[in-house]
Amino acid sequence: MQTIFQSVQVTFRYAVCFTNGLFGPENPLLEEVIRAQSDSLPTKVFFIVDGGVALHHPGLSGEIESYCRYRTQLLTLVQAPLVMEGGECAKNDPANVEVVYEAIHRLGLDRHSYIVVVGGGALIDMVGYAAATAHRGVRLIRVPTTVLAQNDSGVGVKNGINAYNKKNFLGTFAPPAAVLNDFDFLCTLCERDWRSGMAEAVKVALIKDAKFFEFIEEHAGVLSGRDMPAMEHLIHRCAQLHLEHIAGSGDPFEFGSSRPLDFGHWAAHKLEPLTGYTLRHGEAVAVGIALDTTYAYLSGLLAKSDWQRVLNVLLALGLAVHTPELSLYHDRTDARCILQGLNEFREHLGGKLTIMLLARIGQGIEVHEMDEDKIIESIELLAHYQIQPSQEPCREQTPALVY
Amino acid sequence: MQTIFQSVQVTFRYAVCFTNGLFGPENPLLEEVIRAQSDSLPTKVFFIVDGGVALHHPGLSGEIESYCRYRTQLLTLVQAPLVMEGGECAKNDPANVEVVYEAIHRLGLDRHSYIVVVGGGALIDMVGYAAATAHRGVRLIRVPTTVLAQNDSGVGVKNGINAYNKKNFLGTFAPPAAVLNDFDFLCTLCERDWRSGMAEAVKVALIKDAKFFEFIEEHAGVLSGRDMPAMEHLIHRCAQLHLEHIAGSGDPFEFGSSRPLDFGHWAAHKLEPLTGYTLRHGEAVAVGIALDTTYAYLSGLLAKSDWQRVLNVLLALGLAVHTPELSLYHDRTDARCILQGLNEFREHLGGKLTIMLLARIGQGIEVHEMDEDKIIESIELLAHYQIQPSQEPCREQTPALVY
Repeated sequence: MQTIFQSVQVTFRYAVCFTNGLFGPENPLLEEVIRAQSDSLPTKVFFIVDGGVALHHPGLSGEIESYCRYRTQLLTLVQAPLVMEGGECAKNDPANVEVVYEAIHRLGLDRHSYIVVVGGGALIDMVGYAAATAHRGVRLIRVPTTVLAQNDSGVGVKNGINAYNKKNFLGTFAPPAAVLNDFDFLCTLCERDWRSGMAEAVKVALIKDAKFFEFIEEHAGVLSGRDMPAMEHLIHRCAQLHLEHIAGSGDPFEFGSSRPLDFGHWAAHKLEPLTGYTLRHGEAVAVGIALDTTYAYLSGLLAKSDWQRVLNVLLALGLAVHTPELSLYHDRTDARCILQGLNEFREHLGGKLTIMLLARIGQGIEVHEMDEDKIIESIELLAHYQIQPSQEPCREQTPALVY
Repeated sequence: MQTIFQSVQVTFRYAVCFTNGLFGPENPLLEEVIRAQSDSLPTKVFFIVDGGVALHHPGLSGEIESYCRYRTQLLTLVQAPLVMEGGECAKNDPANVEVVYEAIHRLGLDRHSYIVVVGGGALIDMVGYAAATAHRGVRLIRVPTTVLAQNDSGVGVKNGINAYNKKNFLGTFAPPAAVLNDFDFLCTLCERDWRSGMAEAVKVALIKDAKFFEFIEEHAGVLSGRDMPAMEHLIHRCAQLHLEHIAGSGDPFEFGSSRPLDFGHWAAHKLEPLTGYTLRHGEAVAVGIALDTTYAYLSGLLAKSDWQRVLNVLLALGLAVHTPELSLYHDRTDARCILQGLNEFREHLGGKLTIMLLARIGQGIEVHEMDEDKIIESIELLAHYQIQPSQEPCREQTPALVY
């Protein structure tokens, strides 16, 4: 009896928007986004706000309620915004997902209702997972409030929570209904959150866009000095590069083993639990980038001047390139803990180990194995690295970038 | 700052195959399916078997182990097949999902490993949900063993478990890696499982394919008498119609409110919990089809002769068209419990209530509201309905169908 070959095509569309004062009384963005997608109005909307954001913006819940009160033809605010703890603990405690499920059930939210999550990448990941799996997907509008979430984790197609001490062990691919980046939220970020999110911009620039790397290099000083226009340009370009990769890679849901955007991430994913999640994701990625760039240099893949430029820009942004946890040894074996990260990363990707390294600035190169001695040598080199005047690389004169 | 409009296209491909003796030593099907999809071999494979299947096929685990032992270049059997309880209770107890997660973690399964689930639709739904959410999707091969699962639930793109007393409250859209329908498993089905699965074939025939309905009508006697070639034809055609709808509807992941394949399902979804899940899903669907067909007849949408043909074929297949739970009243209110099913169905679909009714045999018609008095009138009519010699409808002479 004949085999039936099924082919199912699905197109997901969403807008990634940039604004200020999203919940200001006159800002039309949220209203427009919902109106464009909804065939029956008013639609139910449920807000979840990161505890850290609520702390720095005590008027936010009131603003949201007022925003909805003036738009009852469009929005039915089902209850006052729910404040939940953000940060990695949001992803570590499964009770958080249950809280969101229970609310969806109790409030009668359906596949055409909206959950709007306002917060950092970890809270967005957790709420996104709950929203994606209740009713096989309640619509999610993400309002990322950190540099990291606005330029990377908040704009992509994934969600997840941690389980069995494995990062993102549970999760789905579920594009959002929209992403609304409000730059105003960045003003109240602490120093670490301001700086650490820039690591993902360095990452994507290094593997995709040499000109963007030069922008970061040239503006490292003002970026670390909290210059807002420079940061806005960095976030927009970084989000754009991530989004272009996802749409254009031919493998947005990662059926294969190749994952270029995870440059620097095999070590980062291991460092986060090794430091008990005291290291921010972006800080861990900075160390991971430094490690893999150093490894590429020691392997003869990358020129010394490029290697120095990468480490220098990370340091100039205020990001460390080394952390003592790189040198932890396993209790029972003689092996460095960090090396376990390679196999865990392979399991996380599935299939064949595939690691992105650097061929030169703006261009990655994939390898399928890494030499453990050379990794350890790289760690030693990083432990003592200090900003050095880089040899000016041979490159064309570029006009000053305008943003 | 410019909005970025993201468009992500994903194509899911999978084969739905038909065979006998899938785990027989010489059957190449499973081997071929895995070989075609895997770039690094051997690949890890983990089997989960429905308790009901294990009971009727005590040699199955041994066959599976032997099958893998002769193919170690291709398959690494990570442990002996795990037997789990099937039926709706598989979807009602969240501990079952945890069992699958824990195994995926412990056995180091990744996105390129395979879980092969052998069983009825409920177990497939539950294991499918766990597989889809671990590592954002471990590959799933479904081996449906009931009529219902082979022709409907096992071939589609959904999974799910029940929560908060709501059917499929948690779930995802996640096409499988392959579906392998082994007809031999049907031989040991009990009478109810043999018959009830045919309700989905009647459903899809009624809204899609008048000729297929005629086939069922003409073969109702042999079908209920367990004629295997007739059942094989029914399953193949029913699966084909479901798959064509999913691929061709333009909305495989159900972003809209229209869901034609849920003809008869609003009442069915309510009857299942109302009967404490003692009614099989197919049995509930048969009642749901009878109810909505009667409603269409009483509303003047459907000719009397067509109405009678529908009820007659259900009865001839051994399916009841009425159940006492249709007439249960809510404890505190004066309302019939079944009527709550309309709103719960709307919530389940999301957006606007959209119910498929019948215009004639082979053609559905969508409505957006139902009259409660007419639903009750339909129930009364069904309570006393008995097979009647239908007036032969005016239709062209068709040659005998060959299967």
